[in-house]
Amino acid sequence: MDARTDPRPAPGSRPTVVVLTADGVEPPTTLDEIRGLADVRECTAETLADALPGAEILLVWDIFSDALAAAWHAADSLRWVHVAAAGVDKLLFDELRDSDVLVTNARGVFDGPIAEYVLACVMAHDKRFHETEALQRAGVWRHRETTRVAGRRALVVGTGGIGRATARLLRAVGLDVAGAGRRPRDDDEDFGRVLDSARLVDHLGDVDHLVMVAPLTEATRGMLGPAELAALPDGAHVVNVGRGQLVDQDALAREIAAGRLSAHLDVLVVEPLPEGDPLWTLDGAHISPHMSGDVVGWRDTLSAQFRDHLRTWLAGGEPGPSVDKSRGYVSG
Amino acid sequence: MDARTDPRPAPGSRPTVVVLTADGVEPPTTLDEIRGLADVRECTAETLADALPGAEILLVWDIFSDALAAAWHAADSLRWVHVAAAGVDKLLFDELRDSDVLVTNARGVFDGPIAEYVLACVMAHDKRFHETEALQRAGVWRHRETTRVAGRRALVVGTGGIGRATARLLRAVGLDVAGAGRRPRDDDEDFGRVLDSARLVDHLGDVDHLVMVAPLTEATRGMLGPAELAALPDGAHVVNVGRGQLVDQDALAREIAAGRLSAHLDVLVVEPLPEGDPLWTLDGAHISPHMSGDVVGWRDTLSAQFRDHLRTWLAGGEPGPSVDKSRGYVSG
Repeated sequence: MDARTDPRPAPGSRPTVVVLTADGVEPPTTLDEIRGLADVRECTAETLADALPGAEILLVWDIFSDALAAAWHAADSLRWVHVAAAGVDKLLFDELRDSDVLVTNARGVFDGPIAEYVLACVMAHDKRFHETEALQRAGVWRHRETTRVAGRRALVVGTGGIGRATARLLRAVGLDVAGAGRRPRDDDEDFGRVLDSARLVDHLGDVDHLVMVAPLTEATRGMLGPAELAALPDGAHVVNVGRGQLVDQDALAREIAAGRLSAHLDVLVVEPLPEGDPLWTLDGAHISPHMSGDVVGWRDTLSAQFRDHLRTWLAGGEPGPSVDKSRGYVSG
Repeated sequence: MDARTDPRPAPGSRPTVVVLTADGVEPPTTLDEIRGLADVRECTAETLADALPGAEILLVWDIFSDALAAAWHAADSLRWVHVAAAGVDKLLFDELRDSDVLVTNARGVFDGPIAEYVLACVMAHDKRFHETEALQRAGVWRHRETTRVAGRRALVVGTGGIGRATARLLRAVGLDVAGAGRRPRDDDEDFGRVLDSARLVDHLGDVDHLVMVAPLTEATRGMLGPAELAALPDGAHVVNVGRGQLVDQDALAREIAAGRLSAHLDVLVVEPLPEGDPLWTLDGAHISPHMSGDVVGWRDTLSAQFRDHLRTWLAGGEPGPSVDKSRGYVSG
């Protein structure tokens, strides 16, 4: 059934919100408030198709779920999907893209936290914390020289809210920052220079810290491939807080094994990273379990954001900014 | 012999510079330039007394040396001692304090590098990098929440150049920073509030990151003792980039062992940290071998600084600012 043919309920009427969650995931902390505003149906991937008929709103609280595609036939009244995450790559599919259903994401919530996480990666790399910790474990006292961070060159691939916050924070501590995005320019207020992400390989020869924070789309999948990795100078440091699939992970692992590059990877192609993957044990590979944005209170912030969006919706407004479904992200 | 009774050589005459070094320490990279300006005598602690007679200038290049006190009887012409380090606690002794001999240090060289190192410690702590690395080594994928750094409270104990650079950098990333020093005030340009370091124990109850960067003097020795450590809130983080003796290290180790505090310690009471010391293996103790300021090129910077000071001296000026020998640091 096509959501476009459904009449929008009269303003002030009480909508139905389906909350797609999963076993072991804590519910939104504002759920009681949401129940005060709407009829709530909680479901999991298995029961989504039963919950959707008649519902106008879907809150994708299990952020890694791709269950909507399979249950789309039951979305007979759906007008708005909110994903409590920055990336919407798991959610999108052709029928949703072609529909009039509004898609919103957790825009803004993760900007500051992920920027801080990237800074932590940069500082740990340049101050050689991982090596220092290994020496401590080995009981070895060995003075070494570290790198001055001010003046180092960072390229932030991805010019959305998270990339912008990252650029501002890295600049604040003195790094020389540029961005890479779809639209090259020289006068961006956060980046200064934005380089053409479609020609990334041309812009990597002098990069000390390469920060991947682009959304995963057909245009960005595998954008950091063997040629791009080879173009990075010896000793360069890759930070991936976007999506694992932005990077050719096997090629990166080879560069790390060769001692040429090192990386902090908060996202991986397959999560959890499979047992036995070389990235678990390579000296220059520092993996973390998709947690860069998840500061204490993050679920409260996400819960409050959806509640606020719902109030806007009930008042006849449009919660937003919305995701450009053809591009796969909120475009400025 | 008393240096005060020595006539100052005529301007333009060629002075003698004694360079106190040690086996295994690389010489100043500007040594050839220095030889162009002065007669140079290289020596070690063992030969210092033989090198000093007739020399006006001593460059303490082996920065951990306390050899001058024992060789003081031979310093018959000494007018200026430059220590290629920030801290002069190893150098000072009563006869030097009471003399007219000018003492200068490596003021400025370490400000930015050590500020960055402190920021790296703060970020690694709040983003739980050490735990993440331990989980990686154990092959465990475990999502955890981290701490938002913006808004966290840092107290920087020590208001010299390094403390100021640290305060500015921590503020730049959003921390709420105060200083502690000898002269309390509310309008410091770098710190805003400067609390009374003599009453440190009264100011610790809300501190997330306590940064020790004070010079070691009789007033600061042991200033972070059992009472001060007990006044810190659970989960507080101590960063020591000053001197090990600022802190009651055994008391700190007990707090870390109890899981109440954690610390990054770049300086220790005895360096290298003795084998078997609990700080080598405690989970919350992160030690490093006195390297926080030593960025690539640091010896070049120190070498150039002394060469420039020597030129100033030869031109009849005073290299400076000088160390206040009664206080034990350069006072603003």
